[in-house]
Order: sequence, then C-alpha cells, then structure tokens
Amino acid sequence: MTKRSARGAKTLADVGESALIQRIARRAGRTPGRDWALRIGDDAAILRPRAGDELVFSTDAFVEGSHFRFGREPARTIGRRAMVANLSDLAAMGAEPVGALLSLAAPRRGALATFDALVGGILDEAERFACPLVGGNLTHARAWSLDVTVIGRCRRGGALRRRGLGAEDALYVTGTLGGAALARLVADRTGGALRRVAMPRIEVGRALAAMGGVRACIDLSDGLATDLAHLLEGTGLGAIVDPGALPRPRGFDRGCAALGLDPDRVIAGGGEDYELLFAFRSGRNPSADTRRIGRLAARSGVPISRIGQITGEKGVRGLPARGRGHHF
Amino acid sequence: MTKRSARGAKTLADVGESALIQRIARRAGRTPGRDWALRIGDDAAILRPRAGDELVFSTDAFVEGSHFRFGREPARTIGRRAMVANLSDLAAMGAEPVGALLSLAAPRRGALATFDALVGGILDEAERFACPLVGGNLTHARAWSLDVTVIGRCRRGGALRRRGLGAEDALYVTGTLGGAALARLVADRTGGALRRVAMPRIEVGRALAAMGGVRACIDLSDGLATDLAHLLEGTGLGAIVDPGALPRPRGFDRGCAALGLDPDRVIAGGGEDYELLFAFRSGRNPSADTRRIGRLAARSGVPISRIGQITGEKGVRGLPARGRGHHF
Repeated sequence: MTKRSARGAKTLADVGESALIQRIARRAGRTPGRDWALRIGDDAAILRPRAGDELVFSTDAFVEGSHFRFGREPARTIGRRAMVANLSDLAAMGAEPVGALLSLAAPRRGALATFDALVGGILDEAERFACPLVGGNLTHARAWSLDVTVIGRCRRGGALRRRGLGAEDALYVTGTLGGAALARLVADRTGGALRRVAMPRIEVGRALAAMGGVRACIDLSDGLATDLAHLLEGTGLGAIVDPGALPRPRGFDRGCAALGLDPDRVIAGGGEDYELLFAFRSGRNPSADTRRIGRLAARSGVPISRIGQITGEKGVRGLPARGRGHHF
Repeated sequence: MTKRSARGAKTLADVGESALIQRIARRAGRTPGRDWALRIGDDAAILRPRAGDELVFSTDAFVEGSHFRFGREPARTIGRRAMVANLSDLAAMGAEPVGALLSLAAPRRGALATFDALVGGILDEAERFACPLVGGNLTHARAWSLDVTVIGRCRRGGALRRRGLGAEDALYVTGTLGGAALARLVADRTGGALRRVAMPRIEVGRALAAMGGVRACIDLSDGLATDLAHLLEGTGLGAIVDPGALPRPRGFDRGCAALGLDPDRVIAGGGEDYELLFAFRSGRNPSADTRRIGRLAARSGVPISRIGQITGEKGVRGLPARGRGHHF
C-alpha cells in the first residue's frame, strides 16, 4: 500500500483526520438506528435504551500481520470480516445489533483507497445487519488495525450465555463447518485471493434465545475443537462428538482429499465459520425438543445438526486434537 | 521488554490467553458496578440500563510508538493515561462512568510484567472512578496497544455536547493548563521518566451538566488551540482568548523560561491536560451566571477560569497558532 502512495496516490496524511471522519460519517449516516439520539457526524454517541432491554457488549480486534495481510485478500473483505466477527459474537448471545464503534489505526502514509475499502467493508456489514456505526477513533500506528466494539439488545434476562451446561445436554451446530478453513488452505496453496466472508447467525441466535432451552451457546470463530473447549472450560464436563454428523459444505470432503487433508481435522481446527454451537437441555421429551429445533431451522432457512452431547466425564471424544488454538 | 524476556522473564506466550484473561478478571472483579448483570470472569458483558438514563460511548486508542514508548515512562503510567483519556471523554459529556471494555494487543514474546503493569494502570483508574472493566479482547500484534471503550450514563437529554455554541457565550476552563506539556518537555530534555497522570474532571462535568447553561463542552486532550478549533468547527463562529487569563500551574512561567519556551505557546500547543473547556450561555444576568459558576467551582474544589468568549467572526484571536495538531 505504501508503494502505491509513493507512486502518487492519496495518503491519509494528505487528507487529514477531520476529512477522514467526514468520509466515514457520510456513509455511516445512511444506516438506520432509531435507538440513537446522536451518532458520528454529530459529536458523541448517545443511546436511549428501551425499557425492559438489557444491553450486551463485545469487542474484537483485527490487526495487520496477525489477522490479515493485504496481499492475501481485498481490503474490503478484511473490513467485512472484522465486522462479521463482532456481529457473530452478538449472534451467540441471541442479541439484536444496536450499534458499533470503530477504533481504526493506520500508518500516516497509508493509502486513502485502503482506508475507504476497509471502512467500506465494515459499513457493508453494518448496513446488512442494521447495526449503525455510531462512533470511534482514528489514530496513526505502524500497522493497520480495526478494533470494533458492538452493542446488542436482548429481552431482560434473555441473553444466551456460554455457561449453563448440564451432562446429557444435546450439542447442535448451525450451518456447515470447515468451509472457511478449506477456502483459506486453497488460497494459501494456489496464491489466489480470499473473498469469502461468513454470515453471522443473528436471526437464528435471536430465535434460539426466544425459544428457550438453550443452556450454552458460542460462535465458532476459532474452530470446533477450540470453541467446544471454551464452552466446557471450568464446568468439569466433557463431550462426545459424532464425526459422521458434522455438517459439511457440498464437495468439502472431495476438496480436502485433493489437498491430502483429513476433513475432520480441517473442521476441528479451522476457524471463522461463525456458525453457532449450542447445548440444548436434555428434557423429558427429547423427540419434541428435536422437532422444535427442526421447526426453528426450517423457519430460519439455516440447517441445524445434532453433532453429539455433553457428558459428565471431562474431555472431548470423537474429534481430532485441537489444531490452531488460542491467540497466545 | 523483549530483552528482559530473552533473559528468562515470563512472556505472554508462556502464560496463555485464558490465564491472562483470568489475571485481569481477578482484579477487575473488585471494582463495584451494580448496573452489570455479567462481566469478565463470566462470559459476556451484560448491562441493565436504569430507566430514564441515556448512555454515552467513547473510544480512544493508545498505540506503542505513537502514543507511548516504554523507555519514557513506566508501563503502569501508560495504562493509567489510556484510561484517563477515556474517562475524560465521559467528563466532557457530563456523564457518570458505567463501565469499560479493553482491547489489548501485545507481542507474543511481550513480558508478563509489562502486561500486568499496563492492565494494573487501567484498573487503578477504573477503581478510582468506579468504572468497572467488564470485558474486552486480547490479541497478538507486533506493537503493544490499548484500545479502551467507555460507557457512561446521563439523565435523558442531559448530556453535555460539543455543539450548541452561540456568539457572545463566555469561555471557561477548569483547573490549570500546560502542566502536562511542560512535564513532557522537561522529561524529554532531561531524559527523566514521566509519571504524571492527569485527573479526569468527572465530578465537575456532572455538576456542569446538572446546572444547565453549558452550550458546548470538550476535554483538553490535544491542547487548547486544537481543541478550541474542534469546538468551533462547522459553527461559523470564532473566539477571543485573553492570554493573561489562562490559568497556569504554580511555577509554570518560570519553568518555561528556564527551557527558553513561551508559556502561552506551551499552553496552546500542549496536550493531555484533560481539563474541560466549555462555553456558557450569555444570559440576561451575566454576573449571576459568574456567581453560579464560582459556587460550582468552590463546591467541587476545582478552579474554573473565564478565559475569553465566542465571537460571531471566524478565527481565534489571542492564542499563538496551533502547535501539535491532528493525528493525521
């Protein structure tokens, strides 16, 4: 990017902070957001919460070199992924998006075109999910980074949580797994650009929260093995997963085979599927529960698969050991 | 810092993400925060807003190399400054702190001692202002950075704003100006460590919001010249400042003289005073207004000085041209 600017393209330093904020505000103002008394373009972010709501907060960072590289995918895709990661956190809480704040760090000599594309990607997703960008901060740094904080709304007491598991609970996932990891592996081997962006499961998350019976929920950002371990952390419980039940995209096993990869390992280790993994209470009438979840899946148009269950015994059976893991 | 870890001190990679979050959660849990149904240590940040409140949001980033250098000041001071910058934004809105989120990026081989000191500094200020750290994100990056988002509460419609200026409004500042800039200049010349941390004017901000009559307010983070320009931006108005009325710390002019500096220029250009600059409506009874502000100052124990007034004519008279300015 600095190379382009050296060849004469506009840099952020050429434009200046106020004008950069105006560029964001102009487009951000198009996303509706009736809860906000003030937003960017104005001077502060002021929210008027609705009675009976509770608000949930989540924050996630995308740092150049750690979470993305400009050569690997278009800047607009990077912006979209940063926003999707945050919206997915709201989905896992069963929350409706209310708004977002963006803290953007960029080199002084960074290209204006890169800035516009990153912010454009964030605003693409913000508009798609009616989650207005209401404020933030611009600063200079050696590397680019996008730090998004999202605010969501739930009925009081109605947020889905990570903790509340019981032995015998059934384990479910939405959608299919491993597609994002396989796309990254293919791009790495072929040198092709990544353009794939997952779909945060906002509507399914809200429907699950409204239905009741979900005892724990997490979004699959780091891969099934790692995120299932997060769900089990500190509970003293374990899980059995049925590898044959792991839902995979069409052509996935063939694609893995072509690269000489074990599909279960790609699913267990891969990240950024942004599907929801949840545990459903083991009720007195399991087949009625299965039917309710089936109806929810049919209504939302998102498949939901039972992949195993929680056990009283620690450890996870049926999944290859964790691939990629924690950030440190 | 990496040198120390090479000599055998513990690094973040040695400790791992979960244990690092536990270290933060353990201490963060000590700050009271009755509005929160869930906080870190638990799995999400869930706020139960009080009826009739509005919530304000602000975010500010501190990036290694741009906003701080480890050799220049202790890591704990850096953490405190990052939190103070955010609390000061709440002060400028007349808001009471409700909570904060921290997005921390750090090198994998960063020293655990540095992490503890940075987080410790943030939590020092969080405790001092009853602003619990309720959530956030940890990630790795080449440089350290602290991205704090704060949430504050105001009576509905009661937040102080930046915009609302009228010609003839009186301009006031709290406290004294230039002290932070002079301390930095002294440290730069002597190579001494910086330990100075400003006091965000939370109580005065809330009292000003409750009193009414304040038409615009901003905190002095970038220096009087730059922040006054922010206040005037887009209004078509200007200001006259009386240099003789600029309140300065004891010994300030002598200190500037010793370094061969013009005190007015240090005040105009220096940043991080975190005092409040506000415009008060030009009422029918200016001397009654002056008395009310005097009483507020006496009650809060913070001096408030009238330094000039807003004018119908664009531009700022009475201040040296801007020193340091915008971030880009």
